[in-house]
Amino acid sequence: MKNIELRGSKLAFIDQNMLPHELIYVETDDYKVVAENIKSLSIRGAPAIGVAGAYAVAIAVLNSAQTDLQLFKKEFYDICDYIEVVRPTAVNLSWAVEKIRAQVDRAGVASVQELKDVVLEEAHRIYQGSIDESRQIGLYGSELVQEGSRILTNCNDGMLCAVEYGTAAAAWYVAKEQGKNVEVIACETRPLMQGARLTAWECLQNKIPVTVCTDSMAGYVTANKMADMVMLGADRIATNGDTANKIGTYMLARLAHAHNLPFYVVAPTSTIDLSIDHGDDIAIEQRSPSEVTCCGGKKMAPEGVNVLNPAFDITPGTLIDAIITEKGIVRAPFEPGKIAEHCNG
Amino acid sequence: MKNIELRGSKLAFIDQNMLPHELIYVETDDYKVVAENIKSLSIRGAPAIGVAGAYAVAIAVLNSAQTDLQLFKKEFYDICDYIEVVRPTAVNLSWAVEKIRAQVDRAGVASVQELKDVVLEEAHRIYQGSIDESRQIGLYGSELVQEGSRILTNCNDGMLCAVEYGTAAAAWYVAKEQGKNVEVIACETRPLMQGARLTAWECLQNKIPVTVCTDSMAGYVTANKMADMVMLGADRIATNGDTANKIGTYMLARLAHAHNLPFYVVAPTSTIDLSIDHGDDIAIEQRSPSEVTCCGGKKMAPEGVNVLNPAFDITPGTLIDAIITEKGIVRAPFEPGKIAEHCNG
Repeated sequence: MKNIELRGSKLAFIDQNMLPHELIYVETDDYKVVAENIKSLSIRGAPAIGVAGAYAVAIAVLNSAQTDLQLFKKEFYDICDYIEVVRPTAVNLSWAVEKIRAQVDRAGVASVQELKDVVLEEAHRIYQGSIDESRQIGLYGSELVQEGSRILTNCNDGMLCAVEYGTAAAAWYVAKEQGKNVEVIACETRPLMQGARLTAWECLQNKIPVTVCTDSMAGYVTANKMADMVMLGADRIATNGDTANKIGTYMLARLAHAHNLPFYVVAPTSTIDLSIDHGDDIAIEQRSPSEVTCCGGKKMAPEGVNVLNPAFDITPGTLIDAIITEKGIVRAPFEPGKIAEHCNG
Repeated sequence: MKNIELRGSKLAFIDQNMLPHELIYVETDDYKVVAENIKSLSIRGAPAIGVAGAYAVAIAVLNSAQTDLQLFKKEFYDICDYIEVVRPTAVNLSWAVEKIRAQVDRAGVASVQELKDVVLEEAHRIYQGSIDESRQIGLYGSELVQEGSRILTNCNDGMLCAVEYGTAAAAWYVAKEQGKNVEVIACETRPLMQGARLTAWECLQNKIPVTVCTDSMAGYVTANKMADMVMLGADRIATNGDTANKIGTYMLARLAHAHNLPFYVVAPTSTIDLSIDHGDDIAIEQRSPSEVTCCGGKKMAPEGVNVLNPAFDITPGTLIDAIITEKGIVRAPFEPGKIAEHCNG
């Protein structure tokens, strides 16, 4: 099963806002529909957004009726400009669009058909790159997963944030393919419940037994020896190993540390920011208070309260046992230069 | 403001299921209505349930038209039997009803009016006892609250679980009366959201600034030095200080420990179980999976997942800096005999 794929000249993608209740693929030849679905978080997760953005440009040019090359080129550039700002902070989106634009510039296309071919080929390359990267991450990550491993995680770092496999989830999907019996304990991940909604659904699709609990139950799980490791994704990693990830990750690291459970961060090297030496330098996005005061669409907290809603927290590198990327496994301690060397190696 | 009070021959109590959206006092002369509201958690919290149970018996006898003493006595005992099993695991309920029954037995009443007087007097005593106990807990607890203290808490241990003040919340309410400016950071307390719904509402009623966050944000709060202490209630305390409290308490203790924040447990001595030496001996109630899979009435997790829903977790006494009761402050370390001596002293 793939999260996103081209079907002829249409893009098909899972509408994540309908999960876990209904599995619906949206199929469209309109790049503006793709943009809307990125905005509404029907498509989410850095690699998935990149692939969707690339294919949005592809379906736009594939379905264009324009026959004049100069007008067609202008149309292409306008579409690129439109797509890349749909979610300004999603670097993968502008990265993917820029890759296509650069390829067209480089190719110096001589016909409408040639431009279409160049765009489609580059979009396919981005798509295949995501699949290969996930698969490679999964192969390395699976080395840390044993027969019978019970993996505590949060948020969604699976197929739904990429094309297939994902990042952290790739480790247990590949382990499962290798014949290992694994179990996942998914913290629900308030406020947006990606753990309960998406990770739990993915596990069931992959016939991996999954247990859902509230985030506050992680202490109970670890103290009662119900998990063998914590394994999860990352949004940004500093060169000392400090990791920004979904809010709640840091407390999982503290609990893992207290109970001698290995704590693994799984992410592509593109997540490692070589310009950042320390977690203190990672800016934390504060999101809308209504995500916290509401639950399942229902207002919970009274009017007049202050609200915190940081999207991420920082887990010190000193609490992380290993970082797994498509290039391999970097084990703690993360002495200066070690992570950068892994990226550049 | 009181959570529960007798008004003439009617019992008035806040319908907590309507909070924080509406403050509604239910007023009734029907003890079965009180019983229904205890069952539906409109009245919750051990002291509150005890007081409501006692007054349920009182309004039943006060409003009875029976004039024959023997028939009236039978009616009284039947009502006691009915009330005390409304929530079987709520020890305060059977404790309160048994106090009234024993008082009637002891008094050897000679008339219908005398029985009514004895019941009413004992119910008032239970009510006043709860108020005095909360006030005394608050006086001791307030010694640990400084000017400007920012207190991280979970669940609801305030007026709504007692008659007024509550337990942990009594500490900050009394501190506020003493002129100290305090702030509360209320973890929302999934699955039932008592923090967001009830604690936040109580703080606003008492003009105490309150910030609501998801339980998963406690790591962010402590790491970013946004709290000066953790202060919360208890459901049962072993003689070594191990404390069963609302799920999520243990992870707050781990975070407080990691960031050198004092961790205070506030509860009446009736919460200390002298027959239990160690937290391992405290049974943990597992509640309905639907509380976790649903959020604000909306189903979040897919069908087919396993679900954990322990109502409590155990915080080791070694992570607790002090236990505050109506008898004073017991400070760590909790060497053998220390907590029992506090209770009996």
